[in-house]
Amino acid sequence: MIVRQIEFVDTDMAGIMHFSNYYRMMEAAETSLFRSLGLPLFEECEGRLVGWPRVRSRCDYHAPVRFNDVVEVHLFVKEIRTHALNFFFRFRKRRPDGTREAVARGELTTVCATLDPTTQAIVTVPLPAVVRAQLEVAPKIAYRA
Amino acid sequence: MIVRQIEFVDTDMAGIMHFSNYYRMMEAAETSLFRSLGLPLFEECEGRLVGWPRVRSRCDYHAPVRFNDVVEVHLFVKEIRTHALNFFFRFRKRRPDGTREAVARGELTTVCATLDPTTQAIVTVPLPAVVRAQLEVAPKIAYRA
Amino acid sequence: MIVRQIEFVDTDMAGIMHFSNYYRMMEAAETSLFRSLGLPLFEECEGRLVGWPRVRSRCDYHAPVRFNDVVEVHLFVKEIRTHALNFFFRFRKRRPDGTREAVARGELTTVCATLDPTTQAIVTVPLPAVVRAQLEVAPKIAYRA
Amino acid sequence: MIVRQIEFVDTDMAGIMHFSNYYRMMEAAETSLFRSLGLPLFEECEGRLVGWPRVRSRCDYHAPVRFNDVVEVHLFVKEIRTHALNFFFRFRKRRPDGTREAVARGELTTVCATLDPTTQAIVTVPLPAVVRAQLEVAPKIAYRA
Repeated sequence: MIVRQIEFVDTDMAGIMHFSNYYRMMEAAETSLFRSLGLPLFEECEGRLVGWPRVRSRCDYHAPVRFNDVVEVHLFVKEIRTHALNFFFRFRKRRPDGTREAVARGELTTVCATLDPTTQAIVTVPLPAVVRAQLEVAPKIAYRA
Repeated sequence: MIVRQIEFVDTDMAGIMHFSNYYRMMEAAETSLFRSLGLPLFEECEGRLVGWPRVRSRCDYHAPVRFNDVVEVHLFVKEIRTHALNFFFRFRKRRPDGTREAVARGELTTVCATLDPTTQAIVTVPLPAVVRAQLEVAPKIAYRA
Repeated sequence: MIVRQIEFVDTDMAGIMHFSNYYRMMEAAETSLFRSLGLPLFEECEGRLVGWPRVRSRCDYHAPVRFNDVVEVHLFVKEIRTHALNFFFRFRKRRPDGTREAVARGELTTVCATLDPTTQAIVTVPLPAVVRAQLEVAPKIAYRA
Repeated sequence: MIVRQIEFVDTDMAGIMHFSNYYRMMEAAETSLFRSLGLPLFEECEGRLVGWPRVRSRCDYHAPVRFNDVVEVHLFVKEIRTHALNFFFRFRKRRPDGTREAVARGELTTVCATLDPTTQAIVTVPLPAVVRAQLEVAPKIAYRA
């Protein structure tokens, strides 16, 4: 889980956070998970440069969030496939009384990729063993808050 | 349809356009349609301030786009509901030889909303008659390119 | 002071943080100061809606910062004028060995403004007394880290 | 010169374009100039990979711009140094009556850089001859509109 306070730049003239910023927050939660488990986000891993191009993203918006709102982003590993990962996200706004309000739900499907040494094209590869191992056995607490 | 050349700021360290920018381009295509038909995007319409909060967005990515690539965004009105609009988008990269490559597909569901004069809350309202009329009869050429 | 870890979306294809993001970080540091002192950033204050349009911004870049770098943004109140505030910023990257590297310096000049009730134009007004009072006597520790 | 219509995502809750977006527009004008002259923005040139890290940026804001405003960005080559370029920018809003309103002025200082083949560090290098030659003799019309 990550916690973010909504910045002024994230708002639009309707007075609420622009819908595209939820995707930035999903990626930040994914980055936080990878950092906490020591996994490669864009670096050498098991002998090759590993990156994670997205193949699908989605977000459902239930309620607006505004400047200064404090939002929790909870990440869940929904599916571990041979070449791909599927993450699910819950966005919760912290109310002044300490309760939470569900404001959005998102999803991100990402493939493991490397650069073909000959053609320099982006090619899909199986998940590195370390990624698979860590995501399968990591204590839920690491990313379920 | 709108045409955009990918800017340097839109790229990330993987050398491709960051996936969140497709949502900015969908919104720009929607804005372009509304402008071309004289419809309200965030203004007074039929006696009240009209806005279009998003309730769902989605994008499928087929191939990366890079700095300087020229991309067409085609907008299709997929569904006109009582309080909501559903837009579908095709992203096509222009190749040097003049052909197009499908690089992504997106979707945006948006509700018509206004501010409750008493509570200042965002409330959903039926589409203004002018929006419904224009989107139903507008020549396809206006937004199907 | 605020501390930020550089996100993937903040990078560009040159592999470093895009120069425009330093301005987002300056604003975040300003917001953090205003929050900590209870000052108005975009709200009612002493009988009118107060906002802070920028009249000048500037940044000098000494060294690049990259994905995952941890950067401190130190804010200094450089000048309190009748209608304007001038902030100065130091960006320091935290090195693995615990030392800091100066990576950038910035400046932001902002005027106090409100909406003219008749014309709805943005007009400059003197700083609210509470803003002047708090910024003049606030313990340096609040924003000098 | 480039011309841009302000997008919804560029606005903030104060109802005007966020000040950081002027820097995106300066870079877009610079890109447009380089494209029109066939100069390298981030690519191989005279035997090495050339990039343009920024060492200084600045903007003075005279009047706000809003959603749907049409803004011209005029680029002027202010100085050509051994290792650096200094660009100056004028932002003009097109009024409905066909006149222009000066809304902002900006500046960008950028150095020519490459990657040291041994250390992979970013190092400053003299401007490629083609860049110097083109910018010195290019017809003013190319970038002064």
